[in-house]
Amino acid sequence: MTYCVAIAVQDGLVFCSDSRTNAGPDMISTYSKMHVFKPAADRFFVVLSAGNLATTQAIIARLENQEEDPGQGSLANCKKMIDAVRYVSQVSRDEQLQAAETLATANVDASASLIFGGQILGSPPAIYMIYSAGNFITDSDENPFLQIGESKYGKPILDRILTRETSLEDAARCAIVSMDSTVRSNATVGPPIEVMVCITDSVEESHYARLEDDDEYLRTVRQAWNDALKLSFAELPRFDWEKRQPPRSLRAVKND
Amino acid sequence: MTYCVAIAVQDGLVFCSDSRTNAGPDMISTYSKMHVFKPAADRFFVVLSAGNLATTQAIIARLENQEEDPGQGSLANCKKMIDAVRYVSQVSRDEQLQAAETLATANVDASASLIFGGQILGSPPAIYMIYSAGNFITDSDENPFLQIGESKYGKPILDRILTRETSLEDAARCAIVSMDSTVRSNATVGPPIEVMVCITDSVEESHYARLEDDDEYLRTVRQAWNDALKLSFAELPRFDWEKRQPPRSLRAVKND
Repeated sequence: MTYCVAIAVQDGLVFCSDSRTNAGPDMISTYSKMHVFKPAADRFFVVLSAGNLATTQAIIARLENQEEDPGQGSLANCKKMIDAVRYVSQVSRDEQLQAAETLATANVDASASLIFGGQILGSPPAIYMIYSAGNFITDSDENPFLQIGESKYGKPILDRILTRETSLEDAARCAIVSMDSTVRSNATVGPPIEVMVCITDSVEESHYARLEDDDEYLRTVRQAWNDALKLSFAELPRFDWEKRQPPRSLRAVKND
Repeated sequence: MTYCVAIAVQDGLVFCSDSRTNAGPDMISTYSKMHVFKPAADRFFVVLSAGNLATTQAIIARLENQEEDPGQGSLANCKKMIDAVRYVSQVSRDEQLQAAETLATANVDASASLIFGGQILGSPPAIYMIYSAGNFITDSDENPFLQIGESKYGKPILDRILTRETSLEDAARCAIVSMDSTVRSNATVGPPIEVMVCITDSVEESHYARLEDDDEYLRTVRQAWNDALKLSFAELPRFDWEKRQPPRSLRAVKND
């Protein structure tokens, strides 16, 4: 399994991915699912990948070869992000089709889904989710993030916190909290957690971190969030019937 | 869709369910998924249901008829909760089988899953999750809750808060917060939210509430939790690179 999320706020983009892959519960490995492309000086692209590992590696290899051969390469030459995502979607479809043919006699799901984002200077940054079928969607003001893989555990916190006005730093923190909730609940999503922060109108990642499970910052955030949730929970309004009851300590005495 | 959760703490049991059913997105109705049985003075049982509505209604009808006919009724006569759950599981299998036969030519999923719990005085209270296949599991000290239906959005908060030592009131509040996170994220899970709290060694629900969307308590908890999460989030530790940067206001000035 996999969990990846991309966030688009006014100040830029955040990408976050886990690194656990599994072919069955007894075959767990660590692979980065964050792939960065800088095929020309005025652009950078990030691909986050979920699904069949062989298929996603084939897609990434195709994109990397395009990079070495800018004569054919759409990523190096395209004018806008929408052209770039069309190209990546086509590569994804091609490679999935080829994998499905190869695997026709095996009962293996060869599909893959992607998050694709980045910026070409002169046009705005963008993020897209490319479904395994090849169609794709972008984010919206109401929903300034996109997820692939095991998306449900980590979605409530994104829903509650993120708007276009959220700072890049808060967006990155929110991605980490969302990832941590997912890692807690699904054993096939795991560290290292990769986070990349990209400022609008810059073609460099401004910050990149690869957080191992025992990473100091990750541990601190995890502990702080857990403590804060428990404290917040303890402060929630009481039921009517609780107010009418004596405090727990008195009730315990009464029962003795 | 459906979301139901049952929690077993030292002081008793909590049951919580939503009330939205849908046969396609254009066919949404409200049905209670919480069914209470008191077939004898020394016992009570609660069934929470998910899956095909016709099948779950057939299961509940069978259990209700057993109640009227205690001569045959396992719920009225069984000695322990494990006997009761075996009986309910058998009823569930029978009704699913019958529904599947009826629907053989239609492309309809007739399956249903249940949470079953309660107490027979003289033996401990218990909760079980009955899979659609008819097998069932109970909870554990590490995992003092069971869920059916759309379980993922609301699981992280249960994981973080619940232990056997959690008070009944906190367990009920935790179920409501878990339900609220799910309602926010999945349009096919919706109010009214039913909550039942049962004290150990009592055969009456001690508290029952049916919370409409605009219920005063539900609104207060929802608002308090949302505010507390945002506040907690704002207090999370900063990245190293944030500390090295000037405050945002200064950076904005610098960029001008």
